[in-house]
Amino acid sequence: MLTIKKPFLLLIGDMTNPRNAKTAFGLRDWAREDCISQLVFSEDAVDLGLPRMTVEQAAQEGAKTAVIGIAPQGGVLPAHWVPVLQAALRAGLDIASGLHSRLKDIPEIAELAATLGRTLHDVRHNTLSLPVGNGKPRSGLRLLTVGTDCALGKKYTAMAIARGMKARGLKADFRATGQTGILIAGGGIAVDAVVGDFISGAAEMLSPGNDPDHWDVIEGQGAILHPAYAPVTLGLLYGSQPDALVLCDDPLRERLNDFPHVRCPTVSEAMNAYLPLARAANPAARFVGISLNTSAMPESEAFETLLRTEEETGLACFDPMRTGVETVVDVLADFPRADAAEGKELKIQ
Amino acid sequence: MLTIKKPFLLLIGDMTNPRNAKTAFGLRDWAREDCISQLVFSEDAVDLGLPRMTVEQAAQEGAKTAVIGIAPQGGVLPAHWVPVLQAALRAGLDIASGLHSRLKDIPEIAELAATLGRTLHDVRHNTLSLPVGNGKPRSGLRLLTVGTDCALGKKYTAMAIARGMKARGLKADFRATGQTGILIAGGGIAVDAVVGDFISGAAEMLSPGNDPDHWDVIEGQGAILHPAYAPVTLGLLYGSQPDALVLCDDPLRERLNDFPHVRCPTVSEAMNAYLPLARAANPAARFVGISLNTSAMPESEAFETLLRTEEETGLACFDPMRTGVETVVDVLADFPRADAAEGKELKIQ
Repeated sequence: MLTIKKPFLLLIGDMTNPRNAKTAFGLRDWAREDCISQLVFSEDAVDLGLPRMTVEQAAQEGAKTAVIGIAPQGGVLPAHWVPVLQAALRAGLDIASGLHSRLKDIPEIAELAATLGRTLHDVRHNTLSLPVGNGKPRSGLRLLTVGTDCALGKKYTAMAIARGMKARGLKADFRATGQTGILIAGGGIAVDAVVGDFISGAAEMLSPGNDPDHWDVIEGQGAILHPAYAPVTLGLLYGSQPDALVLCDDPLRERLNDFPHVRCPTVSEAMNAYLPLARAANPAARFVGISLNTSAMPESEAFETLLRTEEETGLACFDPMRTGVETVVDVLADFPRADAAEGKELKIQ
Repeated sequence: MLTIKKPFLLLIGDMTNPRNAKTAFGLRDWAREDCISQLVFSEDAVDLGLPRMTVEQAAQEGAKTAVIGIAPQGGVLPAHWVPVLQAALRAGLDIASGLHSRLKDIPEIAELAATLGRTLHDVRHNTLSLPVGNGKPRSGLRLLTVGTDCALGKKYTAMAIARGMKARGLKADFRATGQTGILIAGGGIAVDAVVGDFISGAAEMLSPGNDPDHWDVIEGQGAILHPAYAPVTLGLLYGSQPDALVLCDDPLRERLNDFPHVRCPTVSEAMNAYLPLARAANPAARFVGISLNTSAMPESEAFETLLRTEEETGLACFDPMRTGVETVVDVLADFPRADAAEGKELKIQ
């Protein structure tokens, strides 16, 4: 599995639009302790509020990997970035990229990295030889975030829960399945780039057997009722064999993101679609919470919606960015340990 | 989409084990009119009962494509086959292969084909630029074969139904989704080699809008309750938006093929898993028949099982190889035409 050396120098370059620097902001917000500095080309570039350093200064301060923090339109690396990436390699840094275009396909970078023995991480492109899933139960506990749609908080929810569990003294690890999550976690598998037959195998590899009281908190992808991305969702669901599910929803979303001709399912429609499939992989699977993305709602409406959803579902309802995750961590702290015992029953059976 | 020129010369070479010549037998059994000859290296090779010809003779008789009819252990082309493939290219033939190893990766073959302007079809490897699925309804009718497991008759069932419908004067086309089906149909997309995000898009491309009374009869893959192959199954289900489903089952199978630790679901467990997902893509989706692979049963037990399943499900139950497909073609011939009208309702909604 991909493992990216920390700490990081975040490369902003001359990107002036914060929306196209989401990767850098994600790292700053979720892996602050791993980000020692930023590199900008110009005064009007996005400012992460980190110390500005050259690649040489960053290397001297201990940085191990230069991370391309921008996602330009089209996902292609601007040509004038090549010299600074070469300088980073010469200074002793690896390079990590979540762009569509591969660092390994840029000869000036690939050849220099090979000569110097540096590692290039194209985190969106999987080069692992993945097994097919086997469906065998394994020890440890797993939580998977699932959604009514894409792009509504599955990654943030999983990261917040893993962090909240650790703060409570529980054994928990965030498991990343997409490029931004992988950069934040320093490892993972971009499951949406995996060939269909190997998706559940990738998910099994990502959350292997562990201590009976250890939780893998797995970043979900896509949505089970999504016309395009559901296969990835199902592979993650089967391979993760989650003991606990958290459904992520945006209460204001009426149509699927980028699919305006498709209605977004309700919370209960989505739960009804997920649960029988989750139980095919793990008969003990159950929902433990609902994560609502209320960022576009005023405070009063947000709390009203959270309360109403809690009444309707009987589950812990929260917005990780507004209310925190304490209510769902309470549930997980008390999670029945029986399922986690060695030799638990075969799941798809 | 892949289109392979017909008719074919089937290459058997020195393969003596009929089980490793399944591709050639499949073509002979299901595309007999497209197979004008066989080529063998030795007297003890498998005999398809077709005229024996050299590549030059076959080209003179009108053959357009030499098809590698064997699937050796490991899926790699034997090195001593290279000269005959080069001779086929020089004689004017394209070459088609369903092997894991690519013809395009064998320089002596790839370079000669490029020089001569011949086409190499590595049908297991998709080179199309596929779209993501969009979930929009389209005109025409679609039938998808689905299964309780892999390798129990989904391809044969789909081919038999398409053939039976054509014989009845209905508009129907078999749509192939795996390498053997693609060679038989002369085109298709090997969906199990597609990256997760594009599986439903591949299925949409494979069964595009058509006449309101036209049926695409689509070869299913995997199984919805299969720990490894379900993602491909779900992508095919969503992208195909089937109006009609046929469930394929092997009544004697207790454990999944190659997954002896996983119980094979019952017919009703599988139907209950498929139907809500099929209806997410097409609210009118319904099962129209059950195809039982009774090949390992004596005649009396086979008919008893078919009758019992028909009583239990109320659906047309048949074994395409033993009883034919007339009962399910009867249902399809009377299929309500309302759904096929222009402007049918948006399906995932």
